[in-house]
Amino acid sequence: MNGAESLVRTLLDERVDVCFTNPGTSEMHFVAALDRVPGMRCVLGLFEGVVTGAADGYWRMARRPASTLLHLGPGLANGLANLHNAKKARSGVLNVVGEHAIPHVALDAPLTSDIEGIARPMSHWVRTIGSAGGVEAATRDAVQAATTPPGRIATLVLPADCAWTELPGDAAGGARIARLAPGAFDASVIEAAAALLRGGGKTAIVLGADACHEAGLEMAGRIAAATGCALLTEFGVARVARGAGRVVATRIPYVVAAAQATLAPYETLLLVGAAEPVSFFAYPDKRGRQAAPGTRIVEVADASQDLHGALAALADAVSARALAPTGVAQRDRTAAPEGAMTIEGIGRVVAALLPDEAIVVDESVSSGRGFGTPTVGAAPHDWLTGTGGAIGFGLPTAIGAAIAAPDRKVIALEGDGSAMYTVQSLWTMAREGLDITVLVFANRAYRILQGEYAGVGAGTPGPRATDMLSLDRPTIDWVGLARSMGVEAGRATDLGELARELSRGLASRGPYLVEAVL
Amino acid sequence: MNGAESLVRTLLDERVDVCFTNPGTSEMHFVAALDRVPGMRCVLGLFEGVVTGAADGYWRMARRPASTLLHLGPGLANGLANLHNAKKARSGVLNVVGEHAIPHVALDAPLTSDIEGIARPMSHWVRTIGSAGGVEAATRDAVQAATTPPGRIATLVLPADCAWTELPGDAAGGARIARLAPGAFDASVIEAAAALLRGGGKTAIVLGADACHEAGLEMAGRIAAATGCALLTEFGVARVARGAGRVVATRIPYVVAAAQATLAPYETLLLVGAAEPVSFFAYPDKRGRQAAPGTRIVEVADASQDLHGALAALADAVSARALAPTGVAQRDRTAAPEGAMTIEGIGRVVAALLPDEAIVVDESVSSGRGFGTPTVGAAPHDWLTGTGGAIGFGLPTAIGAAIAAPDRKVIALEGDGSAMYTVQSLWTMAREGLDITVLVFANRAYRILQGEYAGVGAGTPGPRATDMLSLDRPTIDWVGLARSMGVEAGRATDLGELARELSRGLASRGPYLVEAVL
Repeated sequence: MNGAESLVRTLLDERVDVCFTNPGTSEMHFVAALDRVPGMRCVLGLFEGVVTGAADGYWRMARRPASTLLHLGPGLANGLANLHNAKKARSGVLNVVGEHAIPHVALDAPLTSDIEGIARPMSHWVRTIGSAGGVEAATRDAVQAATTPPGRIATLVLPADCAWTELPGDAAGGARIARLAPGAFDASVIEAAAALLRGGGKTAIVLGADACHEAGLEMAGRIAAATGCALLTEFGVARVARGAGRVVATRIPYVVAAAQATLAPYETLLLVGAAEPVSFFAYPDKRGRQAAPGTRIVEVADASQDLHGALAALADAVSARALAPTGVAQRDRTAAPEGAMTIEGIGRVVAALLPDEAIVVDESVSSGRGFGTPTVGAAPHDWLTGTGGAIGFGLPTAIGAAIAAPDRKVIALEGDGSAMYTVQSLWTMAREGLDITVLVFANRAYRILQGEYAGVGAGTPGPRATDMLSLDRPTIDWVGLARSMGVEAGRATDLGELARELSRGLASRGPYLVEAVL
Repeated sequence: MNGAESLVRTLLDERVDVCFTNPGTSEMHFVAALDRVPGMRCVLGLFEGVVTGAADGYWRMARRPASTLLHLGPGLANGLANLHNAKKARSGVLNVVGEHAIPHVALDAPLTSDIEGIARPMSHWVRTIGSAGGVEAATRDAVQAATTPPGRIATLVLPADCAWTELPGDAAGGARIARLAPGAFDASVIEAAAALLRGGGKTAIVLGADACHEAGLEMAGRIAAATGCALLTEFGVARVARGAGRVVATRIPYVVAAAQATLAPYETLLLVGAAEPVSFFAYPDKRGRQAAPGTRIVEVADASQDLHGALAALADAVSARALAPTGVAQRDRTAAPEGAMTIEGIGRVVAALLPDEAIVVDESVSSGRGFGTPTVGAAPHDWLTGTGGAIGFGLPTAIGAAIAAPDRKVIALEGDGSAMYTVQSLWTMAREGLDITVLVFANRAYRILQGEYAGVGAGTPGPRATDMLSLDRPTIDWVGLARSMGVEAGRATDLGELARELSRGLASRGPYLVEAVL
């Protein structure tokens, strides 16, 4: 057994049994170990942003970390943007990054770089292995780091000689590492929050992280039933349970004026797994903190703490445990509309056709802001949104979600601009036969930026600025692009065609792309 | 005039008049300034690796820096791999990275990250601007940093409020910054090197960096004529002058055994702008230093020094200045071969059809190793190779080269695996109508890794390893992929078809892609 095999065996022993990968020479012994050690599902991505985004999506649905396998500093660098998103989603990811053999690093070969320096801005934990004998312990520590609540980015650097050096014995010998439990909530804070809820002032609970899973929302719905408080969620949440039968929490909008209006009525915000609401970007003459000045903000529990326990304790403190939750969405069986392609109409088509227990990955950017309302009463589903603002998370995250939940349909809602960042994802979807329907909103522009331009006080774009925000010269043929990578596809120019194409995708068992021309 | 306009005006004043860009909200004031300040050519990329790789290619041909415009930490992160390549190519690049407005950074909005930390591993110089009034001085310093010989990566972080804040006056007021000259060579080292050359031992001059431009090679050819020394180049060089009429220097091979065999005959290596030859990767039981143990290695001048001056002084010292250079390539007018597709045959087709003064960007990886010999006597051309080993440099570098040298045909030789990393480049080629012919070698595998697998001592790949190194499930339809982004394309399955397709591409004025099915 060599160091690489020790790594694979230890990962499997720790139940890390999926590896999203884009390997190179320095990782060949890891690849070789896959043939000797059964049990690791390896998924190849043709670009590292696919790999790290898939690991994010995998955690969001599986609630355990996948590993990634990345080639030296540049391979890691290509994966950083989606590690940023994963970090902000509080996903656990275990990166394995190959490094030159230790004596080779000093020779400054072309691929030599400061791997730890590259890793650090997007990692909670970084370690470089020093010997083959140290692989197992470092790997177990990396698993513990990645699974530290609520979920962390752990980056383990494996020099090639540590991978290829033979070890005595042939099995991972150590004991499994202890998984750390979420931090306990603070009973005195719960009591203070309950007193505020009972006090009768206008109060909203802002939910984030795991508090947006079904059980958390349901408990929050009971608290709302007892106290009349409002329920909100952060704008970007890793995973929100939605649809018929689920408690509805209002998503704080992206647009500053709308977010401020949403928050304005409340004297008190109780944060449960959420941060204080701030605007995505700064704008001249607008405040970044979105709650009205003077709003009392209480952090009931942060994302690393036991959020469901905190909500249950809060429910007990306001005598809500036995109540029926308020605000449960009713099933809306309105048929899909026909007619001209509109954003609102698209939302209604998606709502009408959404299968039970679908996983929706939402990178629709400007096109998708209107989808919340029409999908409230759709079939029960999970909604995964971008958390870090780095474009290109959607298609990779859909891959990871599909691998974590192979019996559920995944629907990726993609702006055309954002889909292009990690478009290589389509190939992996085809290769793995993943059950993903991709809906691309072809507005042929960075539409969101056309709005932001005015928002930051830059006025109206002139011809050169307009050119930098437009994707219509040439237009991208999404149907041809998908087919070139082995994904069947169709185009829709009105809502009737959209419903037919979306139905075709949802009925197929495998990837399908629909280009919705806006 | 606001800070963003000050930045654009200062860049133009410093003759930085090309900007490769992928902007976001925090960069909108820079985009807006483009409409108010004429003279900046802005080229949009749909992924930041396209942007930074284009800046590398631009420097290699224009010998002055382009700017990039990148969106916050994740946008910079997406560009890091090609900044790594640019850094190893010693290209000067001036990155402008938008940051949140300064008061917004503390709010930890979704896109907040440690931008300086992300920049540092791939930058020689990093600075965050602190006020609108400081933009001009910081920009001039960044230009000086980027142009510091031989060429450096300078990263300037521009907070949004520094961009949007109004300044008194309406012009960049300061004086142009002094450009730093290359360091002087050391006359005593030249004398010592000349003594070794005159001494009669077997000596090779290893050329790198600007010493591989036409004038450097010619001077080296005179020294060879006087002394009988051999001429070599590093494996990866940013730009080598090749073809008929140019002095031929032997490229040190990639494969370790071949590299060691190439270097074995020499008692002395004289490095001129080159580093000591080391292997790309480490392998068990092979040495990383490629020269035979005991070889005397003398650094005559490093890449930051005046390499042409050093070669001229060395030529003087061995009385070579008046001699005709030895080893000048003769024009080979062999017609393009026909028949089955072979690597060697492809090289001969390329050689036969190469237009005068073509720029060849070589990311052909395993397929391209045999192209050196057949192209020795082709029409005069520049050959740009990967320098940092990060895959995905070729298509973006071709974009930058085409913009720097619009009257020259650019030919990008691309492995299919490597082309996929920054495949979004095709769209930019179409949009800008760039005169680039892309030749994709569709071997449908990470072929190089299939060789490396054995090289690192991992034996023969089993089925799971083979699966991780294969790109044939599904095959990528390169013709369809190119057309989906607006680039005309054709497929070739034998050498006759290849010659016809390549001729079609070379005859067109604009981008064309040829898929060579291997």
